[in-house]
Formats: sequence, structure tokens, C-alpha cells
Amino acid sequence: MRIIGIDPGLQRTGWGVIDIVGNKLTHISHGVVATDPGEATADRLNTIFEGLTQMMTLWQPDEAAVEETFVNKNPASSLKLGLARGVAMLAPAKFGLEVAEYSANLVKKSIVGAGHAEKEQMQAMIKVLLPGVEASSDAADALAVAICHAHHRMSAIRTGSMATGGIR
Amino acid sequence: MRIIGIDPGLQRTGWGVIDIVGNKLTHISHGVVATDPGEATADRLNTIFEGLTQMMTLWQPDEAAVEETFVNKNPASSLKLGLARGVAMLAPAKFGLEVAEYSANLVKKSIVGAGHAEKEQMQAMIKVLLPGVEASSDAADALAVAICHAHHRMSAIRTGSMATGGIR
Repeated sequence: MRIIGIDPGLQRTGWGVIDIVGNKLTHISHGVVATDPGEATADRLNTIFEGLTQMMTLWQPDEAAVEETFVNKNPASSLKLGLARGVAMLAPAKFGLEVAEYSANLVKKSIVGAGHAEKEQMQAMIKVLLPGVEASSDAADALAVAICHAHHRMSAIRTGSMATGGIR
Repeated sequence: MRIIGIDPGLQRTGWGVIDIVGNKLTHISHGVVATDPGEATADRLNTIFEGLTQMMTLWQPDEAAVEETFVNKNPASSLKLGLARGVAMLAPAKFGLEVAEYSANLVKKSIVGAGHAEKEQMQAMIKVLLPGVEASSDAADALAVAICHAHHRMSAIRTGSMATGGIR
């Protein structure tokens, strides 16, 4: 079972691919789709869509998990984050994958054990969970959401239920 | 010159197609892409993307204009609106069109003459500008953004400049 995790952002969209075999996680690949702030918004969204589609074509994930972007207090910023997230959810859906969503807090809790972890803590835990992996903050967050989905799938299978809270 | 106007929303995305020949506007078609709130968000976004792509394939517009969705005071609602808007901007970009953006206030101003027009006023003015057209509120807003783009294009051509404020 291969999972792609996505941490959307208009400027930088992180992605990370992991495999689960039994209860073992293996790192496959990760990276960031960056866009040019000088370009038109529609073209930047197209760059995100194409970048994610290329990575899915290359790595052939079976399921996708997207982080619910941090909801800023500023409604205009939230709207901007929403643009990138809409495209980041559409790309795997068009690729034929089910798309699970997890709140940033749930992702942090399932990786670090607390909902208020710092970026550095997340990056450090990713290194522990996926030994040898050095990822930038955006890619680490994407790997984290993939791992969060893996954990939820595994515990759902253990309890004989796939009706997990994080999957909509 | 044919323009598609889009008024994005996760539940209902309005679209409207008009032609400009000289300074004459002609109504071509309009409608709404509705999504099922019971479906997964990614699937709803896919419905919007596919619906808009089908209409562009049918009507072959040359340019697209998207309304900047109303930024709600609630950041969570703004994020949701952003999801639909991201997909509504991506669809024409992937279709090869330039995508202009206009704020809701600018659209209202260029149709009704005031930035605080009510929905009913907008629908009434659409009937005046495009005689005989009966459109639902979402489709009327989409036709309005198409007309707004047409006006800006025409005044830009008159003044010999295409650097209009509304186009990014």
C-alpha cells in the first residue's frame, strides 16, 4: 500500500510518498512543488496541479492524504490557502485516488504526540520514523500527513472498522 | 471574442458565456454546476472541474473571468470558498485561457453602478444588459463577471492599454 501525503500552499506545496507493508513504514520519495509569485494565480495553480500529477504518475500511490491547511485569522490568507488546497485535492481525485483529509493538529498529535508541536519537532520525528530522511519543512509536513493516514488505516484495520474520524 | 464568466462556490458554481462584437454584448449560454454536499470534498471539486471543462469544450470561450469570492469573516468558510475558486481558476487555465479576476465589488460597480448592489438588482440589470435572459442568482453573477471583463477589455482597448486594474 503506497500513500502520497500533500501539504498544500500557493507558494510551496510539499509532497511525500511512503509505503506500508504490515505495520512497517518505508520512505519512498518527497519534494516540494514551488510556484513563482510573479506569475498569475491561475498559472501557479496549474503548476501545483501538474507537479503533483507528475509525481503521482512516477510513484503510483494507492491513496492520498491532504493536510487541512492552517486556517489563518486573516480571511484573505485563508482564501489563498484554500485555492492551493482545492487544486491539491483535485489532483489525486482526478488520478483516481480516494483523498483523506486530516487537520494539522491531528497530524501533529499522531507524529509528535501533541497537537501544538513546532516545525523542528516534526522534522526531528520524521527522521526517527523514516530513518535517514532529511526533508525540508514543507516536505516533512507532507510525509507527516502520509504517516498520519497510515496510522489511521492501521488502527482502523486493527479495530475492524474503516470509519475513522480523520477520513471524510 | 467569447468570454466565460465564473462565480465559484463549493455547492453551486455559476457560469455564463457572452460574445462581444465591437461594443455589442450577446448572451450565449449560462448555467450552474451543482455538487452533492453528501459527497467527499475532493469529488465535489472534481464535479466542478469537469462541469466547467465540459462547458468550455461546448462553447469554446477565448478568455475567462472569475469572481473573487466574497471573503467571509469566518476563516473556515473562506477556506471552503477558496477550494472551489482554486478549481474554478484551474479549469480555464488548463483549457489554455487567460484567467482574469475581479472583486465582487468591482463586478457590482460595473453592472449596477454601485459596489453594494443586492442580488435582485444584479439579476434585474443582467436582464437589461442581455435582453430576455432569465438567470438564477449564481448564473447571473457569472454573467455579470463576464460583462465586467468585457467592459474592462473594451475600455482598455479604447485607452490603448491592456494594463487594467482588474486583470492580474
